[in-house]
Amino acid sequence: MLLVHKYGGTSVGSLERIENVASRVSKAREEGHDLVVVVSAMSGETNKLIEYAHHFTPNPAKQEMDMLLSSGERVTAALLSIALQAKGHDAVAMTGRQAGIVTDTSHTYARIETIDPTAMQNAIKQGKIVIVAGFQGVNKEGNVTTLGRGGSDLSAVAIAGALSADACEIYSDVDGIYTTDPRIEPKAKKLDIISYDEMLEMASLGAKVLQNRSVELAKKLNIKLYAKSSFSDNNGTLITKESANMEEVLVSGVVLDKNQARVTLRNVSDKPGIAAEIFTKLAKENINVDMIIQNVGIDGATHLGFTVAQNELERAKKVIESFDHDIKGMDFDENICKVSVVGVGMRSHAGVAAQAFSTLASSNINIEMIATSEIKVSMVINEKYGELATRMLHEAYGLDN
Amino acid sequence: MLLVHKYGGTSVGSLERIENVASRVSKAREEGHDLVVVVSAMSGETNKLIEYAHHFTPNPAKQEMDMLLSSGERVTAALLSIALQAKGHDAVAMTGRQAGIVTDTSHTYARIETIDPTAMQNAIKQGKIVIVAGFQGVNKEGNVTTLGRGGSDLSAVAIAGALSADACEIYSDVDGIYTTDPRIEPKAKKLDIISYDEMLEMASLGAKVLQNRSVELAKKLNIKLYAKSSFSDNNGTLITKESANMEEVLVSGVVLDKNQARVTLRNVSDKPGIAAEIFTKLAKENINVDMIIQNVGIDGATHLGFTVAQNELERAKKVIESFDHDIKGMDFDENICKVSVVGVGMRSHAGVAAQAFSTLASSNINIEMIATSEIKVSMVINEKYGELATRMLHEAYGLDN
Repeated sequence: MLLVHKYGGTSVGSLERIENVASRVSKAREEGHDLVVVVSAMSGETNKLIEYAHHFTPNPAKQEMDMLLSSGERVTAALLSIALQAKGHDAVAMTGRQAGIVTDTSHTYARIETIDPTAMQNAIKQGKIVIVAGFQGVNKEGNVTTLGRGGSDLSAVAIAGALSADACEIYSDVDGIYTTDPRIEPKAKKLDIISYDEMLEMASLGAKVLQNRSVELAKKLNIKLYAKSSFSDNNGTLITKESANMEEVLVSGVVLDKNQARVTLRNVSDKPGIAAEIFTKLAKENINVDMIIQNVGIDGATHLGFTVAQNELERAKKVIESFDHDIKGMDFDENICKVSVVGVGMRSHAGVAAQAFSTLASSNINIEMIATSEIKVSMVINEKYGELATRMLHEAYGLDN
Repeated sequence: MLLVHKYGGTSVGSLERIENVASRVSKAREEGHDLVVVVSAMSGETNKLIEYAHHFTPNPAKQEMDMLLSSGERVTAALLSIALQAKGHDAVAMTGRQAGIVTDTSHTYARIETIDPTAMQNAIKQGKIVIVAGFQGVNKEGNVTTLGRGGSDLSAVAIAGALSADACEIYSDVDGIYTTDPRIEPKAKKLDIISYDEMLEMASLGAKVLQNRSVELAKKLNIKLYAKSSFSDNNGTLITKESANMEEVLVSGVVLDKNQARVTLRNVSDKPGIAAEIFTKLAKENINVDMIIQNVGIDGATHLGFTVAQNELERAKKVIESFDHDIKGMDFDENICKVSVVGVGMRSHAGVAAQAFSTLASSNINIEMIATSEIKVSMVINEKYGELATRMLHEAYGLDN
């Protein structure tokens, strides 16, 4: 089989851990597999480099940041290749550019446009284990680009697609996807299998095991994705396309996201297009708006509420302030969280949302915002009830058993 | 003027020092100069990465080492560009590849083959300060290469040549070239000017201010080279082509090199070509042989003596051991040093060598090997007399005044 492995920052966080990864890759090799291994920067490195840049300015140029931040993955790739060679394997380290990864020009948040897998294929044909520096590519002008946080997952999935790999295994310090965060609910259970769509909802809702864009891409390319731990031999969780028996499970997981802040714009003038203008401008600044609620105010003007990631609130404030000629007032609330239940079973079962609401009501937890999709129900509540709500929902949907 | 600056590892050894470099570059910019700035890795970084690699194997693959080691300069380049932008300048950081530096394929010791200066020229035309990661290029297969120790000096000089720059200023933690090492002889004086050839002899003899290959290239391209300190506003030393008035000075400097080891091969069979074979094989392993002396032994066989850098002795031993069917015995001596006097004035003045020998003889220092060129006299002596010999020669040639 041709396998793509990806090892995250914690898995390669020290020389001993890189040695450990080399042993794992070595074992897979000795089982007869062809291998491409994508690596992240050693844990802490990327943040260190960001701090370095922020020593000079809070807003360093993105092209410079990409040259800066892409260096960490190159170090890991070279070291892992050296470690494998020391074990007697033929290995070669490649940068994103050398692996043929061409992106658009959006520095620090580039999208992969094409992958020319020739160099990787040639190396594999020569019997080499290919090590690729994750998180990076090169744009048409020849400048290094990076793919945003968690971008090494995306590198791995895109490479798996370009090589028609049999599977893409994402290694981190957790051994799979759980029904909820075990630190909140010790009864949380590891899932053996989950659908792309469920995983997407789990990821975007705050489960940090897999980067969202990488799951989207795996779904699009129908790549078998495994979430595994580099510190154990557990099976991990397979993320794959939906199958009939998945629907027998009503709810697969409960996710708590505390990195949420709510923005409420009071009495937004009811001129058409104001909301569109606000959200367009937020999108241009790469601020992801999550839930949106619109109410009619007392004088006929509109109240507009939405949530953004807490760490993007300051930037969102700035964008909104440039619109204040059309807005009568605004509130910002960081003391909220979002708890969500996710499951493809919802498609064929009624009453899942109602059960969620009544579960929270039974403990007098006020639901401030609600958003639903075919396979999830999300509720914004006061932050202090987040863990309690998560545990109650986990029990209510029978995930404790 | 178009100036190329180069800042070494100590000059960019911390964020504060990068800030300091940004101020210096900024000042040169405000004086109206166009600028290309070549940077090394922050001091300690390259050694740290080498240690990392040696954690896995004493002999890591050179291609991997190049990917590993080239990352340090990229970090500095990006950070300096960010620091300059924070000061309101338009700056752009480039890797060796982006700066158009194409090398041969000798990983870890590549030679620059061509520089396509288009990207740098375009950036300069747009009013940008160009920051280039030193020490690195890319070979024709698209793999990153590095230029060997001190390679950033070479990057700077080669770029100065490709851009027809008016001068190339090499900044380090010393403010120029001295008549001898001031730690050995406090009366040592900074030279205002020195010829390329003198500098070449000084550099290859162990003066560590400028990398030898970079001086050779500066000579070939006739580039005005300045050795300056990034920690002072002193004038530094200009390294330039020889002029008539330079010859008025008999000796420009005295250099002590303690990184020397002597190899003596006893009774080498007098078959023609044995010596050639030994030195060819040493050269192939990139072991630089410095002084060579051949004597006839008692039985008509040849004694062959030569010196190598102390840190290359182990590798040299291995090479020589593969020849021992033709060699009756060998000695290795690390307790030697080489002291040399350098000066273009020797060309037109007789007796310089004789004065050196008699100076050492006056203190009963035995000279074990002698090598001379048109502009230098080198003597191998017992290591313990190194500093004494240096001071005596410094005084004998009137450099104390």
